Amino acid sequence: MSEFSLEDINQMHHLYRINLINSCSGYKSANLIGTKDETGTSNVAVFSSITHLGSNPGLLGFFLRPTTVIRNTYDNIKNSGKYTLNHIHDGILEDAHHTSAKYDPAISEFDATSLEEEYKDDFLAPFVKGCPIQLAMSYVEEYPIKANNTILLIGKIEKLYVPDELLEKDGFINLSKGKVATINGLDGYAVPELKKRLDYQRPKAEFVKQ
Amino acid sequence: MSEFSLEDINQMHHLYRINLINSCSGYKSANLIGTKDETGTSNVAVFSSITHLGSNPGLLGFFLRPTTVIRNTYDNIKNSGKYTLNHIHDGILEDAHHTSAKYDPAISEFDATSLEEEYKDDFLAPFVKGCPIQLAMSYVEEYPIKANNTILLIGKIEKLYVPDELLEKDGFINLSKGKVATINGLDGYAVPELKKRLDYQRPKAEFVKQ
Repeated sequence: MSEFSLEDINQMHHLYRINLINSCSGYKSANLIGTKDETGTSNVAVFSSITHLGSNPGLLGFFLRPTTVIRNTYDNIKNSGKYTLNHIHDGILEDAHHTSAKYDPAISEFDATSLEEEYKDDFLAPFVKGCPIQLAMSYVEEYPIKANNTILLIGKIEKLYVPDELLEKDGFINLSKGKVATINGLDGYAVPELKKRLDYQRPKAEFVKQ
Repeated sequence: MSEFSLEDINQMHHLYRINLINSCSGYKSANLIGTKDETGTSNVAVFSSITHLGSNPGLLGFFLRPTTVIRNTYDNIKNSGKYTLNHIHDGILEDAHHTSAKYDPAISEFDATSLEEEYKDDFLAPFVKGCPIQLAMSYVEEYPIKANNTILLIGKIEKLYVPDELLEKDGFINLSKGKVATINGLDGYAVPELKKRLDYQRPKAEFVKQ
């Protein structure tokens, strides 16, 4: 068993630290965020922090790095109010991961990779063609996080596209049927198989006051 | 292909909606949060929104439901400032999922399930014995989310415990070697196999200005 204290984490080599701490929260969602800038240049970038905030209304959040680095995705969302979420799947792992490279804002990652942009229902931001789940999102609000100068950005689901074969009768989307990926740490990818769905849980009778 | 607009989502049956919207963000982390109340009663509850916020300092966040429902975990963290994160693994899926049942605050989920509490290094909050990754966390700050009355709670990693066989030379924790689970929607569990790690990405030469 290895143990790392706060002091150990502070003092370790920064590359070791980012691998360790990025891995220690568990599996992450694997999404491509599509945006468009004011000149019409599209942008697509991998994010692993998309998190469900609530279902009514349908709200999803994600975290962005400090404002000291170039953030095409953030700037485009702030300017246009629109973005897309596209699930990374088994067929595009390398191209999706490559969108983490720091391209100049004038370069579209759609040109630099085999990822293809797709436009639907007059939505401004580009979807990633072929992704098993695609979401049209609009900006709602953001929170600057004091603890480390990141930003929590919250968006509302405007439209959700999902293939019929992934959709179960009760609304459950079977991600494994779409070969949706998950991220371990910064650079590890897995394509899970659904093991089981468990029932809604109620307290066991012997622990309930009569 | 099924398409759901904002209006469709607003109008659908609430059980269909929570399944659909909880599945649409991708795979989620699967953690048990351990806490202790002022009377010494321990609590453990499943959470699927633990998200990496930053590595230096090591910060993780998660979202809690509106303040209108009983939230033992939140109350205990606010009172004591301490909690643990424990990765759900293949061997405890049913018991981990059962902690979502709404027990009275006086009942410890450690009594109502086969999960065993473990205490280490004089840390107040209980760890879940046998979990492949365990984290001692301390409360840092919280943000009330206006859009849906949830709360983002942020904590700092005080100590991280990880078995040597999961730890790679560069700090990467191989979650699949620990049979760590991931959650699809509200009730779907998978235990992924790592497929590949990809390299750090730099822009392709032909897209870089000379």
